Amino acid sequence: MRFFSDNAAAACPEIFAALAAADSLDTAYDGDAHSRRLNGVFSDLFGTEVEAMWIATGTAANCLALAALCPPHGGVICHKDAHIQNDEAGAPEFYTHGAKLMLGEGEGAKLSPDTVRAMVDRVTKGVHWVQPHALSITNATEYGLVYTPEETAALGEVAKEKGLGFHVDGARFANAVARLGCAPADLTWRAGVDALSFGFVKNGGLSSEVLIFFNRDLAAATHYRRKRAGHLLSKGRYMAAQVIAMVENDIWLRNARQANAAAARLAEAAGPERLVLPVEANEMFVRVTADEAAALRAQGFDFYDWAEGEARLVTSWDSDPAAVDALAAAIRAL
Amino acid sequence: MRFFSDNAAAACPEIFAALAAADSLDTAYDGDAHSRRLNGVFSDLFGTEVEAMWIATGTAANCLALAALCPPHGGVICHKDAHIQNDEAGAPEFYTHGAKLMLGEGEGAKLSPDTVRAMVDRVTKGVHWVQPHALSITNATEYGLVYTPEETAALGEVAKEKGLGFHVDGARFANAVARLGCAPADLTWRAGVDALSFGFVKNGGLSSEVLIFFNRDLAAATHYRRKRAGHLLSKGRYMAAQVIAMVENDIWLRNARQANAAAARLAEAAGPERLVLPVEANEMFVRVTADEAAALRAQGFDFYDWAEGEARLVTSWDSDPAAVDALAAAIRAL
Amino acid sequence: MRFFSDNAAAACPEIFAALAAADSLDTAYDGDAHSRRLNGVFSDLFGTEVEAMWIATGTAANCLALAALCPPHGGVICHKDAHIQNDEAGAPEFYTHGAKLMLGEGEGAKLSPDTVRAMVDRVTKGVHWVQPHALSITNATEYGLVYTPEETAALGEVAKEKGLGFHVDGARFANAVARLGCAPADLTWRAGVDALSFGFVKNGGLSSEVLIFFNRDLAAATHYRRKRAGHLLSKGRYMAAQVIAMVENDIWLRNARQANAAAARLAEAAGPERLVLPVEANEMFVRVTADEAAALRAQGFDFYDWAEGEARLVTSWDSDPAAVDALAAAIRAL
Amino acid sequence: MRFFSDNAAAACPEIFAALAAADSLDTAYDGDAHSRRLNGVFSDLFGTEVEAMWIATGTAANCLALAALCPPHGGVICHKDAHIQNDEAGAPEFYTHGAKLMLGEGEGAKLSPDTVRAMVDRVTKGVHWVQPHALSITNATEYGLVYTPEETAALGEVAKEKGLGFHVDGARFANAVARLGCAPADLTWRAGVDALSFGFVKNGGLSSEVLIFFNRDLAAATHYRRKRAGHLLSKGRYMAAQVIAMVENDIWLRNARQANAAAARLAEAAGPERLVLPVEANEMFVRVTADEAAALRAQGFDFYDWAEGEARLVTSWDSDPAAVDALAAAIRAL
Repeated sequence: MRFFSDNAAAACPEIFAALAAADSLDTAYDGDAHSRRLNGVFSDLFGTEVEAMWIATGTAANCLALAALCPPHGGVICHKDAHIQNDEAGAPEFYTHGAKLMLGEGEGAKLSPDTVRAMVDRVTKGVHWVQPHALSITNATEYGLVYTPEETAALGEVAKEKGLGFHVDGARFANAVARLGCAPADLTWRAGVDALSFGFVKNGGLSSEVLIFFNRDLAAATHYRRKRAGHLLSKGRYMAAQVIAMVENDIWLRNARQANAAAARLAEAAGPERLVLPVEANEMFVRVTADEAAALRAQGFDFYDWAEGEARLVTSWDSDPAAVDALAAAIRAL
Repeated sequence: MRFFSDNAAAACPEIFAALAAADSLDTAYDGDAHSRRLNGVFSDLFGTEVEAMWIATGTAANCLALAALCPPHGGVICHKDAHIQNDEAGAPEFYTHGAKLMLGEGEGAKLSPDTVRAMVDRVTKGVHWVQPHALSITNATEYGLVYTPEETAALGEVAKEKGLGFHVDGARFANAVARLGCAPADLTWRAGVDALSFGFVKNGGLSSEVLIFFNRDLAAATHYRRKRAGHLLSKGRYMAAQVIAMVENDIWLRNARQANAAAARLAEAAGPERLVLPVEANEMFVRVTADEAAALRAQGFDFYDWAEGEARLVTSWDSDPAAVDALAAAIRAL
Repeated sequence: MRFFSDNAAAACPEIFAALAAADSLDTAYDGDAHSRRLNGVFSDLFGTEVEAMWIATGTAANCLALAALCPPHGGVICHKDAHIQNDEAGAPEFYTHGAKLMLGEGEGAKLSPDTVRAMVDRVTKGVHWVQPHALSITNATEYGLVYTPEETAALGEVAKEKGLGFHVDGARFANAVARLGCAPADLTWRAGVDALSFGFVKNGGLSSEVLIFFNRDLAAATHYRRKRAGHLLSKGRYMAAQVIAMVENDIWLRNARQANAAAARLAEAAGPERLVLPVEANEMFVRVTADEAAALRAQGFDFYDWAEGEARLVTSWDSDPAAVDALAAAIRAL
Repeated sequence: MRFFSDNAAAACPEIFAALAAADSLDTAYDGDAHSRRLNGVFSDLFGTEVEAMWIATGTAANCLALAALCPPHGGVICHKDAHIQNDEAGAPEFYTHGAKLMLGEGEGAKLSPDTVRAMVDRVTKGVHWVQPHALSITNATEYGLVYTPEETAALGEVAKEKGLGFHVDGARFANAVARLGCAPADLTWRAGVDALSFGFVKNGGLSSEVLIFFNRDLAAATHYRRKRAGHLLSKGRYMAAQVIAMVENDIWLRNARQANAAAARLAEAAGPERLVLPVEANEMFVRVTADEAAALRAQGFDFYDWAEGEARLVTSWDSDPAAVDALAAAIRAL
């Protein structure tokens, strides 16, 4: 019973249907009929003209966005627990040619406008110091919290005021939208976001994420960078088809709601005492002793230990309801 | 009727079966059961212990190999018409952090041992000059010729003598093996090759190529580079499953033979007068006037113009026999 | 009366004499007679065979050392207040092609062995995480403290245990040696140091620092990197002559002692209450109110404000004794 | 008797006087009085507002210019015999983060407008191909020829038409101006040049070249890149003082005229039969047999062999008139 991550979930049935349907004569790279629809599909979804590119990983999507927003000699403000800092093996530095991540603090891996403003103001102007050029947040965060539209917009204000490009790592963007019940636009361009890494793979996709530019001026050079990074697959139609299938019938929201609902059931079972942070998406951190963790594992539940005395539980679109119920009961019984 | 490239061919049925079969609970990245089999499957195929990694594009496979073989301040000897020089948008320079491609000449995009030796000897030793560190050839070449085992081994000798790492871009390696009827080992490690980009996508795959290290010392750092380039997909089992399916039942050879056979039929129809180069794999360059090219297109045949007065025809595993026959007839009728 | 930095001090007379003496027919780059003596001069000074290269800035010396010790996908452990992190505009990332600086804490910009060990142990092994490959300390530190031979050797032990290359940023190495009265060897190779940026410019030089490799295997590729970074000046003899002149007659120690002695006089005047940290080299941080700082400036003393309520005072080889006495008196009179 | 290169010539007396005069209290980096005059001095010289930066090598000046004109994924058109391609150890690729040099042909290392236009037109538009972003020429060229104002302007026209930034490697710019008797402006901004590497070291300087931006928008980021490359020396006043001394009294022209005149005397002695190319600056290539070359060397003349049967002779500002006369006589006597 897998609760260690949503990144190993199955691909949802709509994906396989879409792949089969895409298996017909077409041209290569992103010249095919599916890929050519991508801008339109996502412009509709976001209610504004966007440039959208399929991309095989969230790491690549994040880092192409950062490369578009920050020169090699610049800096990117992010949380110290951000995925781009901790889990991408230096990919941001690779794609940006050595930009520096500037690390801020904040509970639940969230940055506040005041924190960002103070980080920018702390940097002396002048060539000896790396100047911040971009801000990157993760929504939902690495600790399962969400930024609301208002919070995002407040960060967007700071970004604008300080001349920072604004990127959202949306590996679990669907979970955030599902939680908030807002329009995708409210968490992005209406809040001043320039680029979004829109995650599909954790949410039931197979091998395609999408990089969205609301600031479409950034897209042209990114097409070159994507090819140069070896991320322009020749049979792009199979990439585009996956994400179109998940967008067109709101599969992305259906899947995210399922994952969130499973997490909510577990959170209710755990209760506020055990929860390190509120559960707002599909991740939670539960206080358990080593013995309790061992007891859960003995019952067949698979999850990661996190900090001392904490277990991380992650649900996904395909979390087996019976397994979720069983885990909820097991937590209650601790 | 598509003859413009094999990179837009359909994925073969075995691929879809493999994807469906891989859609079960497993862990992420390349920790899953399929990915963990990769080294074994390819070690069996090559008859020696290798390290194998799935990778989404040939460009990324090539450039990860070059990064393993050449430092940022070094040079890579390749043909002036090599894919890495002309068709990868500077990806080799990106992955190697700025190594220089050193361009040699030779008919049909083939390099001879003498050419390589002369290129190395021409470089003055000393820090003002980029020193060659690697040799990269393409087999089958960009012009549809193959290097035989003997030719490859002769290049391997030069590489060894001059201290060069030796990489083969095998985007159409299957076509070369199918043509030559040799063991895969004969075109690689027995000939001194350190790393092979083993192409599957042009040959009926969907989204996975394989990077093979015969010199296994090169693999450890490459795992980091692959992740850092955003090429470690989270649902790796769908990547591994594709290529395992194509290797285990010799699908890769079956498909390559079909493509080669289709090319041979067209070559026979064209006759030696029209052929710019011998046809040894699944690409050919045919002398046609502008009127003749237009006539072919009017009959529904899709292909690229190449140099002045030349058309490039490429067959693939799924080239429709009827379309091949029709094109052969149309060429004869010119 | 300049107390804002030693980096704007005059060049000492021996430098000008050496430049004049070097102005004769010779060959270019580092093939000249002076440059060819560099290895010998520094091998004598350190009592072991070293490879030494003149280099125009400490930033370049530091970053060439880091590039030799850390691959692009690796990390360099340093103090969060290190010059390489804060004052080099991302040069470490440029030269290493994007290695990540991993920031530790410790009073007075010093790292302890326990801190370093804990930083290494905290990193999970695996390709998702940047792995530490090098350790860089500054001696004397950015806050004017020194690492003793014993402290350095203890760090060297950790470096060896954890497989880290070990670099010392010695922008004020002379001040540390002068303070400690030890052999240069005791702060470097005997303590496990692989590479030293040996500063001369702050200490009365004009335009040449020296990069020293105790681990001489690192030198060969560094010669290429130096040229590639545009740091192989054509008239290298003027570079080599400067540092040889400062080493051969112990001018480097004479100058450092003068700077340290001036600082000691000021420290005595300030007294322990005002000093933020002990004064061990030629920098000090003095607690002063805004009014006090203004009063000092009104008397003609030029210095930087540091943290809230702190002034940084830096002495140099050419600090005018009368100015030092005057400042000492003025501090006493606050 | 040195005729192998001008890069090992002595520094002229005015340099030493300027260094001595600069040795006074001032601030660091380029905040000092001399450095702050640089823009003014060069704006006067060029008759337009420029941004000027001292820089320790021509390689660094060239490559900072290229980094300002070309993105990492772009290409720089230059002659196949250009210094940036052949003699800078990959520095252009380092500074530009992997841009590709695109090599053109032309006698005497000169590019013609038609050649450049054809090179641009040959590149298919699209993300698979590195797109040219800049043009770089060398004046005087690596073979001692000069581009006239008209020739330069014609290239500037092509650059403008094709959207290319335009850089001049002026390692021997002084020799070109001295030869042509034109205004420096005529070979630069009036001809559409965006950036010039203005060489002083080969022409009697000690350690400072100057990078000039006529397109001043390019300067701001370059200040960061210069620091990031470790090229912002702390005692910048000694750099600025050198070049100001050479500009203010036309020392740069006096020196270049001396070098050119010496070359002209040798060229006259050699006669048109022996000269591979016209002698327009201070380099020449003379046809000599191996026996003749040996005979010259036996008389104490030091020079490089170039191609088979060719010797390269380079004069400099300090070529000893007696040595020049002796060599002229020796050549006549061959």
